[in-house]
Amino acid sequence: MTVIISVCLLSLPVALKPNVSWSFLDVVFTAVSAVSVTGLTVVSTPDTFSVTGIFILLFILQFGGIGIMTLGTFVWLVLGKKIGLKERQLIMTDQNQSHLSGLVKLMRQILVIILIIEAIGTIILGTYFLSYFPTWQEAYLQGLFASVSATTNAGFDITGESLIPFAHDYFVQTINIILLTLGAIGFPVLIECKDYILHKKQNNRRFRFTLYTKLTTITFFALMILGTIAILALEVNHFFQDKSWHESFFYAFFQSSSTRNGGLATMDVSDFSEPTLIILCVLMFIGASPSSVGGGVRTTTFAINLLFLFAFARGYKNVRIFKRELHEDDVRKSLVVTVIAVFLCFLATVILTRTESFSLIEILFEVCSAFGTTGLSMGITADLSSIGKIVITLLMFIGRIGILSFIFLINKGDVETNYHYPKERVILG
Amino acid sequence: MTVIISVCLLSLPVALKPNVSWSFLDVVFTAVSAVSVTGLTVVSTPDTFSVTGIFILLFILQFGGIGIMTLGTFVWLVLGKKIGLKERQLIMTDQNQSHLSGLVKLMRQILVIILIIEAIGTIILGTYFLSYFPTWQEAYLQGLFASVSATTNAGFDITGESLIPFAHDYFVQTINIILLTLGAIGFPVLIECKDYILHKKQNNRRFRFTLYTKLTTITFFALMILGTIAILALEVNHFFQDKSWHESFFYAFFQSSSTRNGGLATMDVSDFSEPTLIILCVLMFIGASPSSVGGGVRTTTFAINLLFLFAFARGYKNVRIFKRELHEDDVRKSLVVTVIAVFLCFLATVILTRTESFSLIEILFEVCSAFGTTGLSMGITADLSSIGKIVITLLMFIGRIGILSFIFLINKGDVETNYHYPKERVILG
Ligand SMILES: [K+]
Ligand SMILES: [K+]
Repeated sequence: MTVIISVCLLSLPVALKPNVSWSFLDVVFTAVSAVSVTGLTVVSTPDTFSVTGIFILLFILQFGGIGIMTLGTFVWLVLGKKIGLKERQLIMTDQNQSHLSGLVKLMRQILVIILIIEAIGTIILGTYFLSYFPTWQEAYLQGLFASVSATTNAGFDITGESLIPFAHDYFVQTINIILLTLGAIGFPVLIECKDYILHKKQNNRRFRFTLYTKLTTITFFALMILGTIAILALEVNHFFQDKSWHESFFYAFFQSSSTRNGGLATMDVSDFSEPTLIILCVLMFIGASPSSVGGGVRTTTFAINLLFLFAFARGYKNVRIFKRELHEDDVRKSLVVTVIAVFLCFLATVILTRTESFSLIEILFEVCSAFGTTGLSMGITADLSSIGKIVITLLMFIGRIGILSFIFLINKGDVETNYHYPKERVILG
Repeated sequence: MTVIISVCLLSLPVALKPNVSWSFLDVVFTAVSAVSVTGLTVVSTPDTFSVTGIFILLFILQFGGIGIMTLGTFVWLVLGKKIGLKERQLIMTDQNQSHLSGLVKLMRQILVIILIIEAIGTIILGTYFLSYFPTWQEAYLQGLFASVSATTNAGFDITGESLIPFAHDYFVQTINIILLTLGAIGFPVLIECKDYILHKKQNNRRFRFTLYTKLTTITFFALMILGTIAILALEVNHFFQDKSWHESFFYAFFQSSSTRNGGLATMDVSDFSEPTLIILCVLMFIGASPSSVGGGVRTTTFAINLLFLFAFARGYKNVRIFKRELHEDDVRKSLVVTVIAVFLCFLATVILTRTESFSLIEILFEVCSAFGTTGLSMGITADLSSIGKIVITLLMFIGRIGILSFIFLINKGDVETNYHYPKERVILG
């Protein structure tokens, strides 16, 4: 639905610059890329869109980002019938409310939070851009676009070359990383942080963060930091050879943060060596936190898989963390999501190696970027064949909805069986 | 231990042809490759080894193959304390026997079965080779080596170019596929088939194959057939373009069977296109059946992962197949093994992309081949750097022992906990 409206809007002649035309497949690709806030582009945004077109694009990004966040939170809410009171309070839905009015209320909340973040971002970036651009109109337009694109983790740009012009402007990069993080860390975490601040003002009793918030936040920042370290270590004798320590650090830190879902880049990522690119692929595949604007298998899924492995290696049957036990259903779901995601990306890679003439790493990078709705690219997007564009479009779409929501939509819930077959062991190793 | 003895044996000057010398790392590589019956080689076997050397190599392959089979079966036997009576009877160990005498008995049984298969293979191939080679000595030496190499799925050859000389000899290929299958299908399956035949002679009561045998055998042949179809479909316009249907079929069928663990090839696999190579990587990664001479994550592990996914998608909490339920411990173990294996191969790939200058597909192929102890290669083995050789050696070693046996060796068994933390749900999607 949203995709169809976006296709129509982007097809309007008023959205384009004079004398620019594009194929229907390109329109669909751009629409899906925008709605899923992926940021992969087959055409150059500033060369194709008029100012009206840019505002239409901004509107779609805004709507797409909020849509994803709402969908994620809503699915969790509906599943939440089986979830405890504490978590339900987190998103402050009245238990007597119907789902629909709850949904509307939720969307309004998300919209308000996102708009506040974007407004602050626009003011800071727009004001700062006054020194970069000739007129104040252009500075604030750039500021607005950059702020929305960063907060919704859209990865679109109207500079024509992502954040490469700001490769040495650490202020712009820091603001962008903060906006990207706020968008990708997940709505429940933001709400809980708000609660924490309110709580602290009111009284001094200890506030307990939910297991979810602890787990996702730690994973989020751990990936960011480990990613930075990995990039620094792998590129120290390669891309960073002739760079100063602060240049190296910001290149590594920004690109690592960007894989959490932003998709913005301060450099041409294909300048990285192959080991670094593979690490980036995995980081993009993991993606953002749940109920955020981002895609991928999600930070919690990844963390639970890891915890499950450690618990198994130590001989525990239950997965424990922060003096809590994870529900076995959650562990099972995490594993299923990961396996399906690996399979999807594998399938897409096989198809693309067949239809495209790019190297394997370029294809793998594009696939992980699309599935994670990250939007980084080694520069092959515009040259994909029609089949390649369709495959990437589908991946962005699935990455947007999320595999878990997808399973939830087709799944009628647990089948209760009151009969059992005899159990039989099998040899594994 | 076995590796050390093999290194010593292979270092003997008598093992080498005159005027041939090799580095210590190459000796270790070849020893591990032989003991783990992988078949990756850094030196050409016929150019390096004297006839004595070839017999030493045969001895190591023999011992290595039986060692792997025994280890796999033994671990399962020890774990079998928790396993039902039926399965225990399968390997006919007296419940009063100590583990050690059981182990000796088991090894003798395995040795007898393998030797019978190899003897039959040698007679058939040797006699047939009389028309290929000038003297009967050479014909039977080639027959013996081919038979042992195929049965133990070793993948070594003394033709200097695997089975490429027999690319159009469908008889040799068929015999090889049968020997490879007998070696890779797993000891318990062979024993059970023997029981089935004995049982049928004696009376007419229905014989029930164990769940394990059904599962592993079906998966084994399904992978072989699906692999063949995939190769045919992907190469029909490429490598098979100018080939007849029977040539195409045998190329596809042999190479698909070879990934189950043989590692022999009737062609240069690098002639395949990239999508086919990726499929082969996955097939090698899955590997052979448990308690066989092969490596990889094993067919049962793969099958259980798939069954788990389907059960989950349909909303069942228990994994059912053939009117039996799988034990949840087995499901958990399968998932753990797969995740660890993926991680290991990923890590190895990242290291090799850093240290080697080969393309990603060549490295990935080598890594999957080593982990699956398959021994197919796109021809880069001999040109690996020292670090590359060490990484591949380690992978072959882990692939040989098997991840599950490895976990079993370091794991003190399930930790019984009589306290529980409160359960808390988290958001995943
Ligand atoms: K993005
Ligand atoms: K092999």
